[in-house]
Amino acid sequence: MKLVAFLVCFMLAFAAVGATIQPREPGWSGSLLVVPMDGSHWTGVKAVAQEMGRRGHKVMVVIPEVSVLLGPGKYYTTRTFPVPYGKQQLDELQARNAEVMESKQLPLLEKISTRISNMRKFVDLQRATAESLLLNQELVDFLKKQNFDAVLTSPAVPTGAILAYNLSLPAVYMLRGLPCGLDSTATACPSPPSYIPRFFTNNSDRMSFRQRVLNVLVSTVEPLLCRLIYWSMEGVASRFLQRDVSVAEILRSGALWLLRYDFSLEFPKPLMPNMVLIGGINCAIKNPLTKEVEEFVEGSGEHGIVVFSLGSLVSSMPKEKAAVFFKAFSMIPQRVLWRYTGEIPDNVPENVKLMKWLPQNDLLGHPKAKAFITHGGTHGIYEGICHGVPMVMIPLFGDQADNVHRMATRGVGVVLSIHDITAETLHDALNSVINDGSYEQRMEKLSAIHNDRPMQPLDLAVYWTEFVMRHKGADHLRPAAHDLNWFQYHSLDVIGFLLFIVLIVTLVTFKCCALCWRRCCRKLQKRKKD
Amino acid sequence: MKLVAFLVCFMLAFAAVGATIQPREPGWSGSLLVVPMDGSHWTGVKAVAQEMGRRGHKVMVVIPEVSVLLGPGKYYTTRTFPVPYGKQQLDELQARNAEVMESKQLPLLEKISTRISNMRKFVDLQRATAESLLLNQELVDFLKKQNFDAVLTSPAVPTGAILAYNLSLPAVYMLRGLPCGLDSTATACPSPPSYIPRFFTNNSDRMSFRQRVLNVLVSTVEPLLCRLIYWSMEGVASRFLQRDVSVAEILRSGALWLLRYDFSLEFPKPLMPNMVLIGGINCAIKNPLTKEVEEFVEGSGEHGIVVFSLGSLVSSMPKEKAAVFFKAFSMIPQRVLWRYTGEIPDNVPENVKLMKWLPQNDLLGHPKAKAFITHGGTHGIYEGICHGVPMVMIPLFGDQADNVHRMATRGVGVVLSIHDITAETLHDALNSVINDGSYEQRMEKLSAIHNDRPMQPLDLAVYWTEFVMRHKGADHLRPAAHDLNWFQYHSLDVIGFLLFIVLIVTLVTFKCCALCWRRCCRKLQKRKKD
Repeated sequence: MKLVAFLVCFMLAFAAVGATIQPREPGWSGSLLVVPMDGSHWTGVKAVAQEMGRRGHKVMVVIPEVSVLLGPGKYYTTRTFPVPYGKQQLDELQARNAEVMESKQLPLLEKISTRISNMRKFVDLQRATAESLLLNQELVDFLKKQNFDAVLTSPAVPTGAILAYNLSLPAVYMLRGLPCGLDSTATACPSPPSYIPRFFTNNSDRMSFRQRVLNVLVSTVEPLLCRLIYWSMEGVASRFLQRDVSVAEILRSGALWLLRYDFSLEFPKPLMPNMVLIGGINCAIKNPLTKEVEEFVEGSGEHGIVVFSLGSLVSSMPKEKAAVFFKAFSMIPQRVLWRYTGEIPDNVPENVKLMKWLPQNDLLGHPKAKAFITHGGTHGIYEGICHGVPMVMIPLFGDQADNVHRMATRGVGVVLSIHDITAETLHDALNSVINDGSYEQRMEKLSAIHNDRPMQPLDLAVYWTEFVMRHKGADHLRPAAHDLNWFQYHSLDVIGFLLFIVLIVTLVTFKCCALCWRRCCRKLQKRKKD
Repeated sequence: MKLVAFLVCFMLAFAAVGATIQPREPGWSGSLLVVPMDGSHWTGVKAVAQEMGRRGHKVMVVIPEVSVLLGPGKYYTTRTFPVPYGKQQLDELQARNAEVMESKQLPLLEKISTRISNMRKFVDLQRATAESLLLNQELVDFLKKQNFDAVLTSPAVPTGAILAYNLSLPAVYMLRGLPCGLDSTATACPSPPSYIPRFFTNNSDRMSFRQRVLNVLVSTVEPLLCRLIYWSMEGVASRFLQRDVSVAEILRSGALWLLRYDFSLEFPKPLMPNMVLIGGINCAIKNPLTKEVEEFVEGSGEHGIVVFSLGSLVSSMPKEKAAVFFKAFSMIPQRVLWRYTGEIPDNVPENVKLMKWLPQNDLLGHPKAKAFITHGGTHGIYEGICHGVPMVMIPLFGDQADNVHRMATRGVGVVLSIHDITAETLHDALNSVINDGSYEQRMEKLSAIHNDRPMQPLDLAVYWTEFVMRHKGADHLRPAAHDLNWFQYHSLDVIGFLLFIVLIVTLVTFKCCALCWRRCCRKLQKRKKD
């Protein structure tokens, strides 16, 4: 069921391309096409687009005329394309995300049918956006003429990847991960289910036998799941490229994978040479707080503040649920800043400030930040780690449950269920992470590890994007595994051949022995007769 | 047979340890114990030791009283320990390395027995060095008291790793690779034999079926080979640690692996989070040429120079073999600088300068360098790549054949056999790499890729060594795979369990169907009877 909601994160996507290569020299600049995805994915992609533009590259971002977060920036140009839906439809879809908070009250069948209907709406929207870009011949021709050096895109919705593939341009992908392990498949990265937990299983890297059974089962059905999830996009791709093609085949052609995680969040696992870890890329995007917010924060005194946001995809909260939070906040001495876009009730406690938009990273970076209530999106989690703020985590959908599970195993936060939450459990959780020093201590340690890195993630992302532009890709990082089918990859043909040889040798030896034995017997019998 | 010679590179080893951790702050400095290995391995380790000392850390290098290359440096202190052999024995062993150049003339049996005898001598020396350090209680106690933060060592001869293990200190390993794939085992790094060529097979990453069969066979016998190679060291370790222990178990405890390669030389393959690539670390160590050498080089005019060295482990060359080289050099217009320590013949061509020690990296970095004749050691190969000089490669032993094979598949050099070499083949090879522009062109491209990296390898090595010192290791990079046995790692227990379930379900279903069928039949028979 979580899959339905996971796709919330993967909607509203687009695509891009063009190519020439300049030698690397001082003052060299190239040209980059950016095909972003709407939602939180945009944060990291925008940061790289901005920085690339600031460094003198020509950067063009292709976005649909209607979107939730996508928009212009100081250092890049945008090119919009029409889509067959309006802002109202996007708002409606967003509003549906809040349903997850009350879905427990619905009967199971209704719950399932609602989720499937939501999922279908998202998939339709995604397909519509992809078609609007890829089948817009005028736009594609225009992009072709721009002679881009590379494409930067989020492959979760592979519109950008399809366009890059079509225009034979090297693609740089930025992502947290793909559902159904498609990132492992497309990078040929080994991912043994014995210690690499599959998404949505709530497993850690140290599993019991039962958990390993679940993990193996999930990894077995992953390829099927992938086909289902990308069914619609494969249709668009096949029409655009005029031949049957799978999303895995397209993603395999990617030159470089910028992965929005590191091993302060993720469990240690193998990587491929063309994977670059840029977890925490958004943490460096800092702005001063407005005077009003700064005053509110400073006024919290020794108790400090609690930062509360459930992410950009959940715009409101049911009244009854909000009441639980208000009640809990009225019981703590901290001041609370809450990203809240719903109807404002009368009895908001004095220590709570509701804001339509929250400067989350800047607030978490403030010395007064004591706790962070989050839904567990990757960006939020990394902002928390980066600034060393312990968390109360309330996962809603997608990879959030997995993210918060990883944080919980590190002992840097408490997980609550949005369905069962009460003022008391929330109050207890806040009390624990704020006043029980152990959470803070562990978070400080994790933060130190995360921040102790030879290069800033943004610089790394920009460097490798430039690398791909300079060298027309990164072929020297592409493993030969891509040229093998799964049978060859696992050496099953070789093992079969060797077993066959062993069998033949055994049979021949056996036959020879039997023959010798029979002859000996005959001779013995003959002698006896004689 | 090559294995015998490979061990030449892995001889003469030593060990180290101590621990406290300081917080990371400006002006922070820690203390590092370095247990190096003699031979070319020392180059990279020394560079890091020097740089760590220069940055204000307390660095102590533990070396045997007698060695080929090990010695003092400006920024670290040394602590020597007595060994039961003298300089003469080392020289004799080194002289034996030259035998590889004439071994073709020997009958096979004699060749094998000579190699085994050489190998035994090296293993004895290695064991003697390890025992001299580890069983020197006074020295070990002294090191214990120094409260080191970490150990930097070459794990190819695991004396340093054993000492670190005993003193519970985090170990940083620096290496090119280990024989018999022990590095993959000890890091739990997947290494599918279908596209990752095994050492000594001369395979590339794209193999025919026959080559894959060989690769699978070699990977199957690797564990056995490892036991043979490290048999003697395991004995020393078990005596020192007072319990049975394998080298793999010790190496598994390493915190960080600094690998002296990158994907300009190596074929793309998976990496683990605690592996850091520092290929080309020695390239930054530059010094101006002496006046005499500079004049000789400049005097080469438009033709330029050829740099020739067969590495630090081969001190001389048989006269007849040397004559082949002299003859070839007399046929080319380039000037040749040759590291040559043997008896100097009368008729040395005018364009050849014989030197007891060659500033190889500085010469290759000179604009006049046109070609590099090398035995294919990793350091030399990287100096060639770094400065973009095409190569004529004559592998002698160890991993050299594999290194040069990798270079040859990239089309940046020509491989010759030391046994079959003639003045004509050498002349042709030099002529090709110097005058056929394609070698130069491909080498320039490879050089551009190698040099295009976000951080210098030396800085990276120093950064991660400091990281391990700051955080008392790098536990967050350690995969949970280390806690699984091979059966669990490959999920064989889970697969067995699932097959068992399928079998039971099938049997029960079959039995039920059979039962129903029989009952139906009986009823039908009864009805018919009725």
